Amino acid sequence: MTDRFVLHEYSASGNCYKVRLTAALLGIPLERREYDIMNGETRTPDFLENVNANGRIPVLQIGDRFIPESNAACYFVADGSNLIPTDRFDHADMLRWMFWEQYNHEPNIATLRFWILEVGLDRLADVQRLQMAPKRLAGNAALRLMDDHLKGREWLVGNAISVADICLFAYTHVADEADYDLELYPEVIRWMEQIMELPNFVEMEA
Amino acid sequence: MTDRFVLHEYSASGNCYKVRLTAALLGIPLERREYDIMNGETRTPDFLENVNANGRIPVLQIGDRFIPESNAACYFVADGSNLIPTDRFDHADMLRWMFWEQYNHEPNIATLRFWILEVGLDRLADVQRLQMAPKRLAGNAALRLMDDHLKGREWLVGNAISVADICLFAYTHVADEADYDLELYPEVIRWMEQIMELPNFVEMEA
Repeated sequence: MTDRFVLHEYSASGNCYKVRLTAALLGIPLERREYDIMNGETRTPDFLENVNANGRIPVLQIGDRFIPESNAACYFVADGSNLIPTDRFDHADMLRWMFWEQYNHEPNIATLRFWILEVGLDRLADVQRLQMAPKRLAGNAALRLMDDHLKGREWLVGNAISVADICLFAYTHVADEADYDLELYPEVIRWMEQIMELPNFVEMEA
Repeated sequence: MTDRFVLHEYSASGNCYKVRLTAALLGIPLERREYDIMNGETRTPDFLENVNANGRIPVLQIGDRFIPESNAACYFVADGSNLIPTDRFDHADMLRWMFWEQYNHEPNIATLRFWILEVGLDRLADVQRLQMAPKRLAGNAALRLMDDHLKGREWLVGNAISVADICLFAYTHVADEADYDLELYPEVIRWMEQIMELPNFVEMEA
């Protein structure tokens, strides 16, 4: 693979951070291209035509080809590395946590963080305001499930770190910005500290 | 792999059908175990303790191990078959469509279908009723994106059928039950017909 990797991103997004953290841990250079999502820069005709018809970041560019969806981009970056388990069960179990992240974790924890930090509570539509309480409940259930799972385990899958840990770290470690109380989840805190102590770890704001 | 596969399921769920269709196309036998999700059978202490702490189906059981999340279960069943591309880009692109399905397609099309068919519109809470219009819009955007992508392509990824096609077929082919007008998406119809003509294809109700 000689093509350089370009990350089309909005750097405050945890979904974009996942890809940067995966690349950093593996020592893979990423060229970064920033878009202001609050000003519609990922909904321009040019972006929709040439980068992602879905109008979202992150998108990983490899030469003239594009991989949208953060977890797929992380997988591409890590493919062939020790962040992807080779055992058939562990590999599917890793994907299980990554699908679970997109369905049960991100729409609750990342969305509340986005509404609170970037949109502003006073600017929410009724349909969003009514979703605050169910999303709060579901986000806490997701953190509880992770905490229970991590009891007696070092990492989410098998006995080793995998891309699933990185994908789930991204929004978990800023859940306090969505007013989640992480102190309730001591195993999650221990697991996050392990990740932050990894060689080549980079902060979200880096 | 000599362990038999057991699918813990609710057979009316498209997420469960994905796993059955993947196995059927590959000629892999599946033992089926049915749960009545409307009567809480996936929220019992026994289910949460022994099958899936997340209280959801489908779950694929292999011996004494369990893979929740429909798309991860499909991947496990198809691992090593021609439904999983070996090219690095195509493989990540397949995962891209599968993550996109769980984030952009399923929560709009499958959820509206569930509310209309199984819960009943007169029984929806306010927070659900208010989401009907945005989910309708987002579901149509998802079908439009698929239709545009399938122009000039036989399958979603590369030049061959992959698990991504199966995962997206499941809820797309019953989108009319959620009052989506599939006639607006002729490429999607052509692509669905291709799938229904495959050897060993099984219906959702089989």
